[in-house]
Amino acid sequence: MRARNAKLTHVRADGTLQMVDTSAKASTARTATAEAVVRMAPAARRALKAGALKKGDALAAARVAGIMAAKRTSGLIPLCHPLALNDIDVRIGFSGRDSVRISCSASCFGQTGVEMEALVGAAIAALTIYDMCKAMDRGITIEHVRLREKAGGASGRWRR
Amino acid sequence: MRARNAKLTHVRADGTLQMVDTSAKASTARTATAEAVVRMAPAARRALKAGALKKGDALAAARVAGIMAAKRTSGLIPLCHPLALNDIDVRIGFSGRDSVRISCSASCFGQTGVEMEALVGAAIAALTIYDMCKAMDRGITIEHVRLREKAGGASGRWRR
Amino acid sequence: MRARNAKLTHVRADGTLQMVDTSAKASTARTATAEAVVRMAPAARRALKAGALKKGDALAAARVAGIMAAKRTSGLIPLCHPLALNDIDVRIGFSGRDSVRISCSASCFGQTGVEMEALVGAAIAALTIYDMCKAMDRGITIEHVRLREKAGGASGRWRR
Amino acid sequence: MRARNAKLTHVRADGTLQMVDTSAKASTARTATAEAVVRMAPAARRALKAGALKKGDALAAARVAGIMAAKRTSGLIPLCHPLALNDIDVRIGFSGRDSVRISCSASCFGQTGVEMEALVGAAIAALTIYDMCKAMDRGITIEHVRLREKAGGASGRWRR
Amino acid sequence: MRARNAKLTHVRADGTLQMVDTSAKASTARTATAEAVVRMAPAARRALKAGALKKGDALAAARVAGIMAAKRTSGLIPLCHPLALNDIDVRIGFSGRDSVRISCSASCFGQTGVEMEALVGAAIAALTIYDMCKAMDRGITIEHVRLREKAGGASGRWRR
Amino acid sequence: MRARNAKLTHVRADGTLQMVDTSAKASTARTATAEAVVRMAPAARRALKAGALKKGDALAAARVAGIMAAKRTSGLIPLCHPLALNDIDVRIGFSGRDSVRISCSASCFGQTGVEMEALVGAAIAALTIYDMCKAMDRGITIEHVRLREKAGGASGRWRR
Repeated sequence: MRARNAKLTHVRADGTLQMVDTSAKASTARTATAEAVVRMAPAARRALKAGALKKGDALAAARVAGIMAAKRTSGLIPLCHPLALNDIDVRIGFSGRDSVRISCSASCFGQTGVEMEALVGAAIAALTIYDMCKAMDRGITIEHVRLREKAGGASGRWRR
Repeated sequence: MRARNAKLTHVRADGTLQMVDTSAKASTARTATAEAVVRMAPAARRALKAGALKKGDALAAARVAGIMAAKRTSGLIPLCHPLALNDIDVRIGFSGRDSVRISCSASCFGQTGVEMEALVGAAIAALTIYDMCKAMDRGITIEHVRLREKAGGASGRWRR
Repeated sequence: MRARNAKLTHVRADGTLQMVDTSAKASTARTATAEAVVRMAPAARRALKAGALKKGDALAAARVAGIMAAKRTSGLIPLCHPLALNDIDVRIGFSGRDSVRISCSASCFGQTGVEMEALVGAAIAALTIYDMCKAMDRGITIEHVRLREKAGGASGRWRR
Repeated sequence: MRARNAKLTHVRADGTLQMVDTSAKASTARTATAEAVVRMAPAARRALKAGALKKGDALAAARVAGIMAAKRTSGLIPLCHPLALNDIDVRIGFSGRDSVRISCSASCFGQTGVEMEALVGAAIAALTIYDMCKAMDRGITIEHVRLREKAGGASGRWRR
Repeated sequence: MRARNAKLTHVRADGTLQMVDTSAKASTARTATAEAVVRMAPAARRALKAGALKKGDALAAARVAGIMAAKRTSGLIPLCHPLALNDIDVRIGFSGRDSVRISCSASCFGQTGVEMEALVGAAIAALTIYDMCKAMDRGITIEHVRLREKAGGASGRWRR
Repeated sequence: MRARNAKLTHVRADGTLQMVDTSAKASTARTATAEAVVRMAPAARRALKAGALKKGDALAAARVAGIMAAKRTSGLIPLCHPLALNDIDVRIGFSGRDSVRISCSASCFGQTGVEMEALVGAAIAALTIYDMCKAMDRGITIEHVRLREKAGGASGRWRR
């Protein structure tokens, strides 16, 4: 499913940037889900999980940060369009002994996709977890920030 | 150098969140460098590099997006303090046949570190590259979003 | 008219947050009006009113701040959707000897209501008045920040 | 302790607005605490408290929203200065059968006070609670948005 | 084509501000193009052009800044509506020996025009060029920030 | 007083962008004043002035918009540093039969100048006036957006 298009849609023949003009695109229901994995020392992960089991503010903060960042995507990624999002959903799970798994879904009814919103939401939720755990482990690494699936629009469904 | 601190500094005993009060911390020169790697299909990477060799707007957009996002860190990461940054520097290099390597350094003179600024800058620069290449390769993955080194403050120098 | 719904729409069974997915909701005309009352020492109120009668920058600033904050609602309230607002209207009146009364109306055509926009506009307009009068009276209190009425959407018209 | 100053500091003799020039003010440690009370139907309050006892995302979201809004104060209140805040602390308590009590403290070392940051944080945390409970009770009212105490600067300590 | 309307649409009879309520306006395709000219010392212009011919980051930064500012128009201009923009296009050309010419086009399908978005984009792109050249010439002047043409809506096509 | 520096400080030898690292610069008092002229049809200017004489919301909105935009400069101009501004002052005067003259001053104590803050404030105040008068005259032009004087820092005083 790789290499779908022969060129960079945001770069003109002369090398200058452009937004993709969405005027002529049909409005359809669009969804996308992205993920990220936060790798940290088991002790940090245990502390995070213990907090999560108690009152959960740390994970709630990551969820809120992911949702708010996804809404701000067009202010962060230069060529993204402002979108009337219908939903953003950030989920955080514990898996393995050193990983926290983040999933962010976004949806809208519009003329362009919501991949970037899902990716920005997942990345900022992951970085918020980094921020809260960094005193225990500065070596935390965020891996696999990537699209898991998308649907809607001319390019239709894509699934990793 | 892992597991430096026995607890999450942003979570109180009752599980609720807190910013770290920096009032009593000394102001010192702080620097941090973070990195991220964007893995993409060789064809997408070639197209990006060709554009970069011509007029370079795509890479310039990623650099600008990284710098602007780093300045907005305290608006994105809930418990980060607003900082009077002295410098943010985003560099982008091509390495291997399927990777783009991003490095973001930040510095300030203040009461708290600039790791999050460096990480947010690297992550948003990487996501901007994703955005510009996604029509060619939806499977692009961002890996190794992580701190490379930091200096300044009570915890001193840290290096991966 | 209280207690309309048996549960918190933004909290899942497991206690985690969610935005309300508006994908399946019908787009209808939505309006809402909120109010707030600023209570201050009569001398401060007199000074504010005298300024208002002269050139009115103080009240104009409060109106502008309320309008601009209402537009930023989805960036302030974590689970609010970005909305294509058609109108925001902030009105400020003097009543009694120690009160300034603020009313903020918002309207859009969309899939979710504009109560939060009206409330945020009223609250920030009130706080702007606080800011301009605080040197005369630090004890100023903002009361009755509340919805006065709303219309549109599945829940229809509501009036205090 | 009311009516401290004979005029509005933000309004010139001709009625036009001005920021207060802080260039000549001494930098001192500044703190402020503000509060707000959210009045709601007992059933809504019970639902909120039950969620808070389980996983607490609703209250965590209000705390995060308050902290993030306090950091954005100079972008919301027209004549506020940007400040290098050292700390923001939002606390939420249940009291009586129909009230939720919010307290927001802010501190910085600088040339102007942090009252507005504390007030904005308290107001936006309160509005976030409104947003999460509004499906159960549209009549929720936010009362007593006000300063509880401040310290630092030429005007020194003030306590309600 | 001047003096189209007998009154200021944003000011009520009593002198207070208002947004223009767009609820009853038809949604149509809207476009606008604005321009700005940056006048600078020939040496500064030569340096800018040389950079532009090499890697072009300076001009790319101006284009990106213009696009991002245009998206933020409703957060900058108090009475502007948030709009779902379909496209923003910033072009920069060299003409004469002391001028850089900026053109910014915007388009949306909606109930109000995009003139302000085009103007804000042109102005901020011009100011970004100022920022990058100011060490060589503090006397740089931005002239002719103005609408070149617009189309769509009840007032139809307008052309300078 | 032109052509002060032989190169663009924000562009490296290889053409890529950089912020100017201010770490080693001395903190000094910095001030800058910028101006802009709004040229409009005499009828539009008369209407604006009449409103200004009555309640003045239109001019107050322009002043507020200029102040708020100046505070947001580092979020708009890619390579600007966030600054702890001490003051921003926007003044608007009527001169000639078709001109409105805007002046914006900014000051801070810091490691870099405030020219861009003054220029952004003047430009956005001017565009706000455009927005409020555009229904009467779409041909309004903003001219002479430029620095009038600056003081402080290594480059010292500059005056047009």
